[in-house]
This record gives sequence, structure tokens and C-alpha cells, in this order.
Amino acid sequence: MINFTATYTDQYQLAMAQVYFKSSQKADRAVFDYFFRKLPFQGGYAIFAGLDHLLEILEDLRFSNEDLEFLKKQHFDRDFIAFLKDFRFRGKIRSVKEGDVVFPNRPVLQVEANIIEAQLVETIILNLLNFQTLIATKASRINLVARGNLLIDFGLRRAQGPGGYLASRAAVIGGVSATSNVVAGKDFDISVSGTMAHSFIQSFDDELTAFKCFAQERPQDCVLLVDTYNTLESGMPNAIAVAKEMEERGDKLMAVRLDSGDLAYLAKKTRRLLDDAGLDYVKIAASNQLDEYVIKSILEQEGPIDIFGVGTNLVTGGPDGALDGVYKLAWSGGKPRIKISESITKTTLPHRKQVFRIKDSHGKCIGADAIGLYNETHIDTMYHPFEITKKMVLKGFEQEPLMETVMENGKKLIAKQSLTKIAEYSKQRLSELPIEYKRFDNPHLYKIGISEALRNERDKLIRESKRSL
Amino acid sequence: MINFTATYTDQYQLAMAQVYFKSSQKADRAVFDYFFRKLPFQGGYAIFAGLDHLLEILEDLRFSNEDLEFLKKQHFDRDFIAFLKDFRFRGKIRSVKEGDVVFPNRPVLQVEANIIEAQLVETIILNLLNFQTLIATKASRINLVARGNLLIDFGLRRAQGPGGYLASRAAVIGGVSATSNVVAGKDFDISVSGTMAHSFIQSFDDELTAFKCFAQERPQDCVLLVDTYNTLESGMPNAIAVAKEMEERGDKLMAVRLDSGDLAYLAKKTRRLLDDAGLDYVKIAASNQLDEYVIKSILEQEGPIDIFGVGTNLVTGGPDGALDGVYKLAWSGGKPRIKISESITKTTLPHRKQVFRIKDSHGKCIGADAIGLYNETHIDTMYHPFEITKKMVLKGFEQEPLMETVMENGKKLIAKQSLTKIAEYSKQRLSELPIEYKRFDNPHLYKIGISEALRNERDKLIRESKRSL
Repeated sequence: MINFTATYTDQYQLAMAQVYFKSSQKADRAVFDYFFRKLPFQGGYAIFAGLDHLLEILEDLRFSNEDLEFLKKQHFDRDFIAFLKDFRFRGKIRSVKEGDVVFPNRPVLQVEANIIEAQLVETIILNLLNFQTLIATKASRINLVARGNLLIDFGLRRAQGPGGYLASRAAVIGGVSATSNVVAGKDFDISVSGTMAHSFIQSFDDELTAFKCFAQERPQDCVLLVDTYNTLESGMPNAIAVAKEMEERGDKLMAVRLDSGDLAYLAKKTRRLLDDAGLDYVKIAASNQLDEYVIKSILEQEGPIDIFGVGTNLVTGGPDGALDGVYKLAWSGGKPRIKISESITKTTLPHRKQVFRIKDSHGKCIGADAIGLYNETHIDTMYHPFEITKKMVLKGFEQEPLMETVMENGKKLIAKQSLTKIAEYSKQRLSELPIEYKRFDNPHLYKIGISEALRNERDKLIRESKRSL
Repeated sequence: MINFTATYTDQYQLAMAQVYFKSSQKADRAVFDYFFRKLPFQGGYAIFAGLDHLLEILEDLRFSNEDLEFLKKQHFDRDFIAFLKDFRFRGKIRSVKEGDVVFPNRPVLQVEANIIEAQLVETIILNLLNFQTLIATKASRINLVARGNLLIDFGLRRAQGPGGYLASRAAVIGGVSATSNVVAGKDFDISVSGTMAHSFIQSFDDELTAFKCFAQERPQDCVLLVDTYNTLESGMPNAIAVAKEMEERGDKLMAVRLDSGDLAYLAKKTRRLLDDAGLDYVKIAASNQLDEYVIKSILEQEGPIDIFGVGTNLVTGGPDGALDGVYKLAWSGGKPRIKISESITKTTLPHRKQVFRIKDSHGKCIGADAIGLYNETHIDTMYHPFEITKKMVLKGFEQEPLMETVMENGKKLIAKQSLTKIAEYSKQRLSELPIEYKRFDNPHLYKIGISEALRNERDKLIRESKRSL
């Protein structure tokens, strides 16, 4: 649906790239870290999403002729525009796996490329990974409380325009099973699902006729919306009548849908009506401003809902709306680089790096990731990044390296996986995380440590920078 | 950048459309209202945006061959898919002008079309108008407090994926002057702007060299980012040195940019340093988590900032993230239709309608819109939609009809306007709105009334519906 070209970027990337192009840095190699500083939703983890889609886009990324014509009118140098005509991303990318649980202030993905190429892909990397990680995390939180009931993405109408297209993709990674979004279903191979609108029922002179027509035309996946006039007095009696007619034809009503009122209360009454009519196989679907808190509450009240249609809050990542991921220089011109900040907590980490997940001898996560230099294969002691007296000896713990090379010379190295597979991996990784990190209120703080070698390199750069001021 | 095809929809639209296609309703004409129920940001108005873009898309909307192949695998009827091959939107659309101030619970746009066509475009209408109206409203709020200073959209990296593309468009309608988003600038003819990143400066061995290189390459729009190491001790002295060098070459430094720290405080110090160096023409730009509240506070403290780069909160419409616009059936099969709700405030209004803005004899808005039937040209008395004792006699007031036909037989009737023109119109309309509706805290409630004829029609349908239950 979307043709991402290389003008899907911020103007300053091009301005900086032109300066590099005309300077001695033209051939420099640079390393950038993608990471975020704050977990969304005041939660204890995030689900990394967007990688496979990003890599496919980067493989084909170029400036179209239309792009180049536009740039000619934007004060860019002619030699530079000629250079952009042949621009391809030929870099290397190392990343954690899509679907893994990730945490703030440690690299999630690292780009190593010619400095011009690395700069020109910054915006698209941030744009795609920040958003999909936000939505996969939201979906995962909803899935955590859904007790195995089916989740369906109903969000396209309230999505942030075409953001909804990628929201549907990311939602699956976090545990949503199907979407109402047809184009996302087509392009990302997601199961597509839907019911009927109130307007459909209103367009008939009575509800029963509307139900009958629908059931005859869509017997294989018939879900009847029962709240247009009055759920218990009208919608349910009519739905039950139609379900009985369907039985006579050898069909089965799949579900009824509640879209207003007190869902927990109505679901109980609805379940009773269905069961009393011998329709215990008919499921109850519910929608209307759902999120992880509402679903949790409904299920705690034992509201017998089998299918949740989740919309606005899922696809817009409400109430947060954005993940604060950044892209920071860690190496260029043959040297490690850091960004000093007045706040030590915002000072970046130099060098190519590896991240290790620390596990106990039974393979269980202990709630810590340790960052080392790229060539470290094991970290003996991890240090708190800023509080110099805090450290943890890692003897006896397993250390799983998390960053793997996923792109080399601009070619994707990892095979395409279905979203279902990525979702399964995500579910497994989330299951390895102790429950304290998954609760909604004041979740346990996941520890991030750095190796002695990395700390020494960083501190040396800080000292050098202070001296030069 | 985006190829919207007719699968940019919810699956249930297709399921319902198939039922209509196979039923006697196939040729029915239907009327749907687009409206929203709640103003975003707890504000007093919204800015309607997305119309011209929507109409262009609707003119060309069709199912691609790939779409049709996909639908064949989705249990749709073969005759129906053959019908979809020739699907075009051939309906009529009446709407308020793009950029106008709009309010809850009154039609903003009305679709009149064959019921299948009207249903198939519901999702794309909601998706595009809800989001662009949200963002134009956010931009307008920011513009209200910016005291004429320049606003630039820096949001693409934190946008909701490709939602950022339309956010940049909508932001201009609300009063933003330029964007960093190159592809949006190209496709929507928005002024494109940008500065430099911290990584650019870090990639040089020292800040001064970085500034010099940039100024030489981009003298026409040079903005130097001064907070990489230390704004007042390093960034500003270096920027001043480069500005002086530029003067010797006949160039002028456009601005310095602050991206961290206490912006109001730093701006004052920075202004003093620039002025003392005889650089009073150099402007100060600021960015970093800005929104309407932060900008208001900075300017109330007399922080001398000339250019605000606004990102995340602008392009994601934080903290709301979505406008709750809906699409409700008002007419079909030759009859007016309503959706009854247990809450009278959610009961819809039947029929084709016109909306009038009520103005006093000097042409000043009094803070009320009145909804009448389509063929009413004047409303004598407007009634509160739900509280039967409340009414207002409109004798002596001007009544400006707001809904005009913008599409007929699927062809756009209105000429394309530049975003700048739409923004100017929006600014003018906002200036007609009394200030009480524009304040952030507890703004005045804009009144929506209905005509006696419309009220009678609605109440008749409510009574009929109650009888049939």
C-alpha cells in the first residue's frame, strides 16, 4: 500500500549528508545505536516490533526521480543530487530479534554504515520501530489480561491515518489474532475478521429481518450485533430466533456482539439467554472503548466474553501515543563517540556493542541485561551505568547474546517469518520474564548494567571531552 | 507516497455490502452523517481537516486486481467480487469547508450515495478526517499561544508510522509554517525546513569545525545546534565565531537552536550573547518536548524564542491520540433513519440536514450552530437537542449555511486550494470565534440547537421505534 522512498526522512538528514558528501568524511564509517529511554504505559517491558518490515524497506530504499526533482528545487548541490540518484543503503545492521522483550537505555538495534547512508536512514528507522514497538507493547499488555480469549483489532477508523496499517501488523506481534483492516490483512497475511454495523440493522425496517439476511449471506462467520435497539429485549430474542433457523439449515451462529452498556453485566445476561436456548456454542464478542484495564475488570467480574474487539487505544497506543526511541552516534571516523549531557543519565554509550540477557543456571531470566563491547563474549561483572558503587558479579549466570547481524551490505540476512511465528517467539520470551515485570502497577525495575571495558571507554571519552571544553 | 485502494476498509463493510448486493436494497440510496461527539484536548473548538485529500482519494478509489484476488480467498461471493471490480464511488458529498471551526454533535460532512458505495467508504472517511482534524486542532492550539512566532513540524521520527505523512499536512492547516518531513513537503507543497543533529557535531573532532563546515555548505538556511557540549560555554561562543566568519563572506547565520535544558532561561542568555556580539538578526529556535502549554509558559516568561520546532505532541495529537468521529445512517430506502440509544444524547438525527452558524447583526459569531432539515433556509427558533424546555429565538440573527456540495456523482466540485489558503481561511474563521471558546481551561460551551421540523421528525421516529419494541 505504501511506497517508502528515501524522502521519507527529515530535511536535516539531507543537509547533513550534503556536508559529509563534500567533506573528508565522505567515506567514513559510522555506528549508530537505536534505543529508547522510557518504557511506554508505565509498564515493566516493551515488545520490539517492526524489524522485518524495516529491513525489507531498507533493501529497496532509493530516491525516485520525482524525489530528485523535488530536491533540485530545495537548494541542494547538483553533485550531491547526482550522488543521491545512486543512493542505496549498503550498511550492516545488528539487532535483537523482532518480538523480544526489550528495555530502556540499552541498544535494541545498531546500524554500521557509511556515515551518509547511516544518516539518511535515521528517520525511517525511528519512525517505523518506535511506532510498531509501541503498539506491539500495547497489544501484549491487553493479551496479558485477556486470559486466552480472542483479541481482534477493530481500530482502523480511529487510527492515526495510515498509521493504522502498521498498527495492525504490530498488534499481531503483541498477541492480537485478527484484524478488521482488510489491506493490512492482505499485505501482512493477518486473519481478517468483522461483524456488522448498527447502520446495517437500521437500514432494514426491523432487526429480525436484518439478522436473517445477514445470516443467510454470511453463514460461515456470522456475528450478530445485538444492541441497536435493546440488547436483552430485542437484540437477543431476535439473535436466538436466527440461530435456531441457522441450525435448521445446518449452520451455526458464531457469536453475538455487545457494543454498548455495561459489558460485564450484559454478557452474563446474554450468556444465560443463549445457554437457556441450547446455544452454548454461540460466543459473546464485545467492543466499545476497550483497553487492558477495562478487559481486566470485565474478566475479574467473570463477564463471560470470548472475543474482544479492541480499537482506538490499541492502534494509537493510548494514552502514550509515542515511544521515545533515539538514534545516537557511537562511532565514526575510526573513533568511538559519545554525546555528553548535563544529565549523566542521558550520556550515550560509545562503540559497537553486544547486549547479554542474564539468566540463572536453570535458564530463567533474573531481570537484567548487560551491555558490553562488541568483542566481549562474556561479562564478569556488570556495573550500574551511573552509580559507581553499584555492581553485580555475574559468575555462575548464563549470558545470552541478544544482538545478531540481520543485514549485511544492505542485504537482509534473516529469512522472512510470518507474524504468527514472531508472535509465538514474543509470547515465549515474555513467558521467560518474571511476573513482577509484567504487572501494571509499579512493575519491578529491569536492571541494565555495563561491562568494565565499556565503562572505562565511556569514562575516558567523558574526561577527554571535559578537558577540551 | 500512499496508494489508497478500496481495501483500506474494515472487513464488515464488505460483508454488509455483499448482503446489500444480494438483497432488494441493492439500489437503495443512503445518507450518512460524519460527526464527532467530544472535542479533543478538553478544548472549546476543533479545526476540520482532511477534506480535499479525502475527495481526491474518493475520486480514484477502486479495488486493485491484487485486492480482488485477496477477497476471493476471503469467502466473498463471486458475483459480488465481479461487482467490486467495477466499484467506483459515484455519490454526493456535502461538507463544511476544510479549515472551518467545528463542534460536537452536528454534521460535519454528509455522504449521499448508493448504500453499498456509502458503506464501502465509511472507514476511509473516518480514518482520514478523524486524524487530520485532531492534528489541525492541536496545531491550532499551539499556534494560538505562539504569538506569531514560527512553528515547524519536527515530528516524523515519533509519528505513528506513516501517520506522520498526513500529520504534516494537517499541521499546516492549524497554523504550522514548515515541516522537516521531506516527502510530505513534496507531496503537499509544504515549506521544508531543518537544522542539524547532535550526531553531526559529534562526528567532528570539535564543535567549531562542525559549525564551520555546515555554514560553508548551507549558508542560505544555516541554523546551528548549540547544546551538544555546553550551550553557553561552548555552543554559543563557537556559533558567534562562525556567524562573524559568515558576515565576512556576505552570508548571515539564520538561527541557533536550543534542544535541551531550561529553554526560557537559556534563550535569554543566548539572546544577550548574540546581541552583545552585534548579531541581533540571528534568531533563536527551540525544540524538545514542546506543546501548547510549554510554549505558552516560555513566552509568558519572556523567553526570546523566535522559532519553535514541535514534534511528538503535535504529530500524534497527544495526549488524546484520536478524535471520536462516527458515521451514522440518517436516511435509506426512502425513509429517515435514527439510531436509538439508551442515552438520549447518543440518539442520532435523521434526514439530510443543513447546519447554520448563528451570527449577530454585526456578523460576529454568538457561539451557536443550528441544525435544520436540508430544505430549511432559515430557522426561527432553535431547540436544545435533548432538554425540551430550552430554546432560543433566532429572530434578528444572521444564519450562515455551512454545508455545501463538494462532490457530485463521485466528482469533486471544489477547486484544489493550497494548504496555505486553507490555513488562512481557518485563521479567519477562528478569529470570528469569541475568545471564551479558545481558552484552554474550561472553555465556554458552544451551543448546538435543532430546528422544530428536525426535532419533530426525530421524535416521531423515536415514538415509532418504541412502539415496535
